[in-house]
Amino acid sequence: MAHDGLTYRQSGVEVALGDACSKLATEASRRTLQNRHGRAGAVVPGSLGGYSPTLAFGPQRIGVTSDGIGTKIELAERTASYHSLAFDLLAMVADDLIAAGIEPSNVANILDVDRLDASVVSQLMQGLEAAAAEAGVAIVGGEIAELGSRVGGYGPGMHFNWTATALGVPLPGFGGQVSAGDTLVAVASDGLRSNGFSLARAILSRVHGEHWHETLWQGKSWGAWLLTPSRIYCRHLVAAHEAGIQLKAVAHITGGGLPSKLRRILPSGCGAVLDELFPPQDWVLALQRLGGVADAEAYRCWNMGNGLCVVAEDPAGLVAFLAERGLQARPAGRVEVGNSLRLKNLGAEAGEAWLELPLDT
Amino acid sequence: MAHDGLTYRQSGVEVALGDACSKLATEASRRTLQNRHGRAGAVVPGSLGGYSPTLAFGPQRIGVTSDGIGTKIELAERTASYHSLAFDLLAMVADDLIAAGIEPSNVANILDVDRLDASVVSQLMQGLEAAAAEAGVAIVGGEIAELGSRVGGYGPGMHFNWTATALGVPLPGFGGQVSAGDTLVAVASDGLRSNGFSLARAILSRVHGEHWHETLWQGKSWGAWLLTPSRIYCRHLVAAHEAGIQLKAVAHITGGGLPSKLRRILPSGCGAVLDELFPPQDWVLALQRLGGVADAEAYRCWNMGNGLCVVAEDPAGLVAFLAERGLQARPAGRVEVGNSLRLKNLGAEAGEAWLELPLDT
Repeated sequence: MAHDGLTYRQSGVEVALGDACSKLATEASRRTLQNRHGRAGAVVPGSLGGYSPTLAFGPQRIGVTSDGIGTKIELAERTASYHSLAFDLLAMVADDLIAAGIEPSNVANILDVDRLDASVVSQLMQGLEAAAAEAGVAIVGGEIAELGSRVGGYGPGMHFNWTATALGVPLPGFGGQVSAGDTLVAVASDGLRSNGFSLARAILSRVHGEHWHETLWQGKSWGAWLLTPSRIYCRHLVAAHEAGIQLKAVAHITGGGLPSKLRRILPSGCGAVLDELFPPQDWVLALQRLGGVADAEAYRCWNMGNGLCVVAEDPAGLVAFLAERGLQARPAGRVEVGNSLRLKNLGAEAGEAWLELPLDT
Repeated sequence: MAHDGLTYRQSGVEVALGDACSKLATEASRRTLQNRHGRAGAVVPGSLGGYSPTLAFGPQRIGVTSDGIGTKIELAERTASYHSLAFDLLAMVADDLIAAGIEPSNVANILDVDRLDASVVSQLMQGLEAAAAEAGVAIVGGEIAELGSRVGGYGPGMHFNWTATALGVPLPGFGGQVSAGDTLVAVASDGLRSNGFSLARAILSRVHGEHWHETLWQGKSWGAWLLTPSRIYCRHLVAAHEAGIQLKAVAHITGGGLPSKLRRILPSGCGAVLDELFPPQDWVLALQRLGGVADAEAYRCWNMGNGLCVVAEDPAGLVAFLAERGLQARPAGRVEVGNSLRLKNLGAEAGEAWLELPLDT
């Protein structure tokens, strides 16, 4: 099927160049591991490949991860609403940690601004306090840097970029062998979280012009729809683990979508069939239609309604446990022999009932 | 003495507003400490006030700190020289840790760029590898984010902001009571490190115009002078500690200069007399003269030749130990009863032989 719709690449993101630069950084990092060989802070072998390497301090293990919320910040600038961004920031790092079986404990945050506006900073920090409670972490310092024209953004207000590094401790006994036949439990997302905003912004500015955020869809502005805060999952999975529910693997569906993030938890030689995924939010489908984005592209760029995929020894028990805590979760499919995802397509086109997506290599 | 020279504030940095925003952030952080009360990652009481809070993971203590290199990055953009910036980045975080008695072990770094240039990223990462060896740390992951117009800078190349969060372990037995009469050992710096660049850039652009970095001073461009990489001290102090030299306190002379950073190690009711400080580099004095910056202002904005001030049980032993490792250090003065720094002025004006600077409160 031919498309003249937008792709992630056309929205300005050069995936291959990004991968090449990440590789440069990762290789340089690897060569520094010897600096701590046999000493405090030695990297646990095999843990550097993921997003959350684990460090050994004597018998203590500490996981660490870093991320930012990218261009989602522009939505806060466009809507002058700053309270919810910290939920995105902490979701990115804390839920990456729990995907590695690490209970997030602490977050350091760095706020780069062009010029300070105490009112905006105050709203950001109020949000951070609330998000930290939701993630169960203590904020430990950080940095606010005034960088003038090194930081830009939308409109006349304070512009900023916001990143975080999170620490945590491995959950004892977390993890297990994932095998063909295992059930994949999906946990619903509330929106795009902090990924795929370059594409979303490109679509909306093409269709609705410069002030696209003010355009209403179903009585609510596109700015408000896109700003929908990320749900923070980690505390609920920690609670499930502590309640005795054995978690075998957790995929946090961020950049690259299901094909990229399920790859991380599926064993070699296995793919998955997903026939009961949560559907994308109506506004995400509307966004996809506005952009003429192919379903396959949408599933590779956005989470399409599913924030986590979890493999547990007792999938039904996990679903029930999460439901009691207000999280929508359900068995969404199962691991199968293969090398692709076969999913019952819930995208805007759904020209065919099933979509087959190769897993990222 | 009246001055029409530049001050830090006139260079565009609003210190009071910055302090107010830092306070908002710190207070919000404090209210999140309860989220880890009695659990892994609890903040050690009293450690949140400094730059490097300490966390308790069972019996293990972990120090953490975050910083960036601010507008010094513009110098790399102006000179198209990217190899040395990592020395600034790691110096900022690793030497803040050692100032808290914490041996740096690991660094996560976050690179925000407008658009990627693999050649620039490669140079940055080569520098990071070299700087990590110098600091004795392992780089553990991080993040490269493409943010388009949210990141700006000088010239047509890739623009970026670069920050880091460092972890480390407390040196056993580090620290001791600092008292009147104790010797302050100064360790020489090579230049501005990563502080006071807003003032430096304001001076040079006022005097030499837009392309000030190309203007030569003593046969070398101002761009190259200002880019002088930071010396990373931490590994040498760790070695001194391991060699049995008892370190009572370490001040890392960064933003706010000696009056701000000595305040952190001087007990209440004590100031210091500093009659043997290292002089500022000739190019720093030339810069000060170009800007008509008052000596007192220069000592509050720049390190003026002294990157560390250390109190040790055996100052002469420390000086000799550091000299063997190629670091210039010398007894620069002593702690005395009072509430100010009296220093033998080595600034560009030096209109009076002694300068009295109130300690920051």
